[in-house]
Amino acid sequence: MATTNTNHPKRPEPQALASAIEALAARFGNRLITSQAVRDQHAHTTTWLAPQPPDAVVMAQETSDIQDVVRICAKNSVPVIAFGTGTSLEGQVNAPAGGICIDLRDMNQVLAVHPEDLDCVIQPGITRKTLNEHLRDQGVFFPIDPGADASLGGMASTRASGTNAVRYGTMRDNVLALKVVRGDGEIITTGTRSKKSSAGYDLTHLFVGAEGTLGIISELTIKLRGIPETIAAAACSFDSVRGACQATILAIQTGIPVARIELLNAEQVRACNSYSKLSLPETPLLLLEFHGSENEVAEQSKNFSEIAKECGGGDFTWTTRPEDRTKLWQARHDAYWSVKALRPGAGVVATDVCVPISRLADCVTETEEDLKRLRLQSPIVGHVGDGNFHCSLLCDVDDRDEMARGEDFMHRLVERAQAMGGTCTGEHGIGQGKQKYLKAELGPEALDAMRALKQALDPQNIFNPGKIVPAA
Amino acid sequence: MATTNTNHPKRPEPQALASAIEALAARFGNRLITSQAVRDQHAHTTTWLAPQPPDAVVMAQETSDIQDVVRICAKNSVPVIAFGTGTSLEGQVNAPAGGICIDLRDMNQVLAVHPEDLDCVIQPGITRKTLNEHLRDQGVFFPIDPGADASLGGMASTRASGTNAVRYGTMRDNVLALKVVRGDGEIITTGTRSKKSSAGYDLTHLFVGAEGTLGIISELTIKLRGIPETIAAAACSFDSVRGACQATILAIQTGIPVARIELLNAEQVRACNSYSKLSLPETPLLLLEFHGSENEVAEQSKNFSEIAKECGGGDFTWTTRPEDRTKLWQARHDAYWSVKALRPGAGVVATDVCVPISRLADCVTETEEDLKRLRLQSPIVGHVGDGNFHCSLLCDVDDRDEMARGEDFMHRLVERAQAMGGTCTGEHGIGQGKQKYLKAELGPEALDAMRALKQALDPQNIFNPGKIVPAA
Repeated sequence: MATTNTNHPKRPEPQALASAIEALAARFGNRLITSQAVRDQHAHTTTWLAPQPPDAVVMAQETSDIQDVVRICAKNSVPVIAFGTGTSLEGQVNAPAGGICIDLRDMNQVLAVHPEDLDCVIQPGITRKTLNEHLRDQGVFFPIDPGADASLGGMASTRASGTNAVRYGTMRDNVLALKVVRGDGEIITTGTRSKKSSAGYDLTHLFVGAEGTLGIISELTIKLRGIPETIAAAACSFDSVRGACQATILAIQTGIPVARIELLNAEQVRACNSYSKLSLPETPLLLLEFHGSENEVAEQSKNFSEIAKECGGGDFTWTTRPEDRTKLWQARHDAYWSVKALRPGAGVVATDVCVPISRLADCVTETEEDLKRLRLQSPIVGHVGDGNFHCSLLCDVDDRDEMARGEDFMHRLVERAQAMGGTCTGEHGIGQGKQKYLKAELGPEALDAMRALKQALDPQNIFNPGKIVPAA
Repeated sequence: MATTNTNHPKRPEPQALASAIEALAARFGNRLITSQAVRDQHAHTTTWLAPQPPDAVVMAQETSDIQDVVRICAKNSVPVIAFGTGTSLEGQVNAPAGGICIDLRDMNQVLAVHPEDLDCVIQPGITRKTLNEHLRDQGVFFPIDPGADASLGGMASTRASGTNAVRYGTMRDNVLALKVVRGDGEIITTGTRSKKSSAGYDLTHLFVGAEGTLGIISELTIKLRGIPETIAAAACSFDSVRGACQATILAIQTGIPVARIELLNAEQVRACNSYSKLSLPETPLLLLEFHGSENEVAEQSKNFSEIAKECGGGDFTWTTRPEDRTKLWQARHDAYWSVKALRPGAGVVATDVCVPISRLADCVTETEEDLKRLRLQSPIVGHVGDGNFHCSLLCDVDDRDEMARGEDFMHRLVERAQAMGGTCTGEHGIGQGKQKYLKAELGPEALDAMRALKQALDPQNIFNPGKIVPAA
């Protein structure tokens, strides 16, 4: 299925590449790594896309390292690819034209925390768990949780979100300002620490979601929240996906500020029961979390339970005890492993689409029917408050027929979501895997605009070439 | 003070302009207006900037009208300026190089409302009050309230916000997708109705805040909210601006979801007392609004009153009766008129800056001291939850000395905000008036990037030339 790479940027001239690597070796010594094993680790993709390793990896330690790598690459017209934790899902860190990977894991400092302003300034390589450990003593936290313990630079670059975006927004809503290394190695500052600004074009949000194709993020200023006084978790089974979706719609319409609301379809619940030794009713399930004061959380839970009952929900249990909450969410967190266990040895391809919430029940139901028709297995979990859901498609990579049906399923899933007014990706990004769907979603004019922006900010096409924008 | 127009784009050739107007007349008949009075109305600026009328105005009725105006203007290299209600504050609708103004007031239709998805699709000329009247029966509303009854296209273009941004965000947070007419008259679709997307560069947020310099917004998809069950208003006097700011910081840190929190400094309270025949203590005042269920609102009010007391706040009164709420907010809504009444005949120049909230008390206090030192009068109102505040500077335009002191004050205000990590404008935009401050705020690299984006999307420089990006 490497055929889904629709964009094939040209490799640099061998002499130019050699010259770049020589200059990098002189500058970085043993922080320039060309071993095959390390290169392969940096082309790790959790998709069907074939890995495409870079020619070398530089371990960056400070901003000036990024600047120098970019300058050397620009001088030699060699691609440069930023790397955080390699947990992106659509081939974002692949190097289809080779080039230099900048590994940012060591740039993981918290540079400043401003609890009164609810913001902090960080380096791009810090992961969300490390950040939240650092912040905990100050009573604040960074809410975006995409599942993986991703780096914040990577999360900004893919416009990541996750389970609590329904309350706290996505990376788009939580990045205040960036510093970005541009093609000549100089640094663009995109904003200030003020919560609002109308000062010129929104450069911040142009770089958020740009997947490293317009420059390399060297510093982020992000929003924080106060740690809630009380957190309650709840679970509620439904007869149908439609009932679960309807309850979600009503909860949001009536303004219940639910912090997490996750849908597991019947097949996913079966997988969880089997993997986590649970005995949940094998019907669609909502897992919820409420944040607030003790009274607020009690009222939110009560209001939601009434809505759930109206929509065919079963017993509604909620708890504020940390150990009970953990138990309740374990099934959700283990969803990936539970799917893996359904067919040991088979590949699991994770994909996501997002639709207006009024169409979510239709989209999930039709997708379940399509899976049955195509004789494929793919449990479904959804960030149902946002209309966003994930299929975890099981496929034997050696079974050509199944792989073909799998590819067919993926195309149809995207087309279904787009026909319902949705998008080909709610949170995984375009990378290589979803370029072919952009035109149908936004039209040729939007692609023209994206190409013009890429050309304007990266005229040499050195930043992560072959991603996002399909070749014209 | 017209000297503050730092950007002087070239006027089109007379023959090209004549040719464009001829073609527009043939296409639009009496919807093309060249009378001086109408042209002057479309250069209305509520600033010190000199009005610069366009050469003609076209009254657009549908998207194809915008497309044809743009095509005719592009063919003749004539500027084209979008006009909503003319309530922008930094010369955004001025025509420094002449050209054609497209008046969008008749494109004011609600094209679709999706209450389950909490979104609607509208034409750009609809004003926020008209929109909310249309929506009321469906139990939903659009929350952004910049004060003026502005058009939604204009609000998106200036990235407007206002009193309840602290809870509901700004236009940046509430626009899901746009249709934008580009230089060849074709239409760019920037997004879908799905609440989240990671599908490519964030075109939506590039056009939000672009002040019509990159294309003309012909359609918006915006987020709505459920009308809250209960709304409570409250007022609380403080000994000092610092106490009021500290109460605000604590309220936000502890997660009280206050819907509005407005600061009036002592001088503004004096002006309101005099104009609205009130007898409020003439010390800094916070006006608040809480949205939610009856219980939620009661708890929010109680929690805030405890915080206020700790921070030196006086009596805290809250009410949910609509007539009492209206009375309480009347003083805030009449703030502009109360300032006007302080010195009949003098001009009132409205300006805004925004700082991290931890610096707000410093910034307001130093600004008050500066006014005293410069012998100037300017009541202050602030969207204190966002760190954003407005000065309403009274100046006799015929008094050159006072005008010079006023200009000095404005420069120092912006420099003070920027030195505190803030921005030269939280919600009014750059337009013509604040171009000179962008470089100090973001650096030359950000300006380079903005110029490159302008060049990429509007290579002919026909869209609202002379705005946002200072000449290189």
